[in-house]
Amino acid sequence: MSAADISATPEWIAADWGTTHLRLWAMRGQNVLSKRSCDQGMGRLSPAQFGPVLEAEIAQWGADWAGIPVVACGMVGSRQGWSEAPYHPTPTDPRAHLIRVPDHAPRPVYIACGIRQDDPPDVMRGEETQIAGLLAQTPDFDGVVCLPGTHTKWVRLRAGRIERFQSCMTGELFELISQQSVLRHTLDLQGSDLSAFDAACAEALGDPARAYGGLFALRAAALLNGLDPISAASRLSGLLIGWELAATRDLWSGQTAALIGTAKLAALYARALGANGVQTQDYPAEPTTLAGLHAAWKTIGACP
Amino acid sequence: MSAADISATPEWIAADWGTTHLRLWAMRGQNVLSKRSCDQGMGRLSPAQFGPVLEAEIAQWGADWAGIPVVACGMVGSRQGWSEAPYHPTPTDPRAHLIRVPDHAPRPVYIACGIRQDDPPDVMRGEETQIAGLLAQTPDFDGVVCLPGTHTKWVRLRAGRIERFQSCMTGELFELISQQSVLRHTLDLQGSDLSAFDAACAEALGDPARAYGGLFALRAAALLNGLDPISAASRLSGLLIGWELAATRDLWSGQTAALIGTAKLAALYARALGANGVQTQDYPAEPTTLAGLHAAWKTIGACP
Repeated sequence: MSAADISATPEWIAADWGTTHLRLWAMRGQNVLSKRSCDQGMGRLSPAQFGPVLEAEIAQWGADWAGIPVVACGMVGSRQGWSEAPYHPTPTDPRAHLIRVPDHAPRPVYIACGIRQDDPPDVMRGEETQIAGLLAQTPDFDGVVCLPGTHTKWVRLRAGRIERFQSCMTGELFELISQQSVLRHTLDLQGSDLSAFDAACAEALGDPARAYGGLFALRAAALLNGLDPISAASRLSGLLIGWELAATRDLWSGQTAALIGTAKLAALYARALGANGVQTQDYPAEPTTLAGLHAAWKTIGACP
Repeated sequence: MSAADISATPEWIAADWGTTHLRLWAMRGQNVLSKRSCDQGMGRLSPAQFGPVLEAEIAQWGADWAGIPVVACGMVGSRQGWSEAPYHPTPTDPRAHLIRVPDHAPRPVYIACGIRQDDPPDVMRGEETQIAGLLAQTPDFDGVVCLPGTHTKWVRLRAGRIERFQSCMTGELFELISQQSVLRHTLDLQGSDLSAFDAACAEALGDPARAYGGLFALRAAALLNGLDPISAASRLSGLLIGWELAATRDLWSGQTAALIGTAKLAALYARALGANGVQTQDYPAEPTTLAGLHAAWKTIGACP
């Protein structure tokens, strides 16, 4: 960020406001002038605190940006957030839905609505904006979008609409199992063994029932055979992602896949999908989120 | 426990010394004179502390019981425990293996050896003593033994020998998911909805791959449909036990099953197995452990 960037006045402010963090970008059109973040996530704020936190954070930029609109996505729009942005039902265009926060004097604030699926029940909040960002770059995308993370989403996207989707708790399970279960003694997360990952992923996808027993087997293999802790961690990752692929096969089989996420995790999913004949294209998380928020900003005139 | 019981001198002392607790029973033959327990588990003790902890706990009984032997099972015999009681390989008779702790002056202390399976790798430590207790009561048992718990074991037992076994982390996963994942907001563990349990168990056993997506669906159903938290907790239990049954089907299918565990958990497994045509017989945990330790005590003369 240069001094020249700070001196420019933004046209709008992008906000990704999740459970643990608030990330802000000062924007002119699609260009980032400056960015900042803090740990004032939804999880630690009462509804009345969101407005003051937002203004205090913007004030840190040291400029008079009163009246400049904010477009936000994420858990800030949940029932426990600032102002509920209700879930829109599938099938739906992920780009179309914003609410305006009532009674915030300093500036207009808009929040993207989450998306819900009624049968089987599923929800997303934040990912719809990343999918909108993908559509801003690839309007005719037809295939599956995978957004790996704490609660990975698999989304069937066609003709600009989300038809259906499936969430899997893979990221959260990996974290709980690797950090708090008996396997924590057995795993080293500071490395990777891709052939162990590949083998475990193929095993779990081929026989997901049996893979359930493969979890404790990591501990036993460490005790009996000295299984390398890096290989064990990669095996755990492969088992869980293979399971997830088995659970979502009807969404990705025979499709083109887009991956929206951090580079390291996206690379594992690309590898697992590639081994099953699915070509993937990467959409890095931050620019894709910004593209989605930009598309939302462009619709503000239509927002009630 | 009556005063008369205390005044009797035990012939031996039974000990179940696990990761979190030490449980002691003063015994005459198979009869319990008195029992006590404390939270001095293996997890908080260094090797040099086990001896003093044992003597201090026995001294609490207030009698001069020097020289009376102790027979122990559980993690006290692990590599991180008091004195390693090495794993015996399958197939094996679970009753035959004890080590004596070296250099403990006040009394002889014996520890039951765990059991290992090399392919696929698996281990047990403590459960072998409960299986020995089952064999003390039912010497000709032929079938599968299920020991539900943190790491549930499924054990094929025939002609007095463990042929093979499979561990599943169901108890630990249920605890981590229900207490620490996003689902913790969705679950109430203080009740049960058996029809929700049955349905989820059948779903997971019928299609274990799809069940993986059923975890986050509990959260979504709570948000969208107000899924009852007691029903949600029973569904989670059913999904995990159904998965476990899918993973262990070759062990229990068409067999007689014995359940060794606490009443509440054993009842869920009995229900799940019964729905699949498997009759079960209950062996309550504590008397079965004591029967196994008693059988071990009877072999002490043969211990090196």
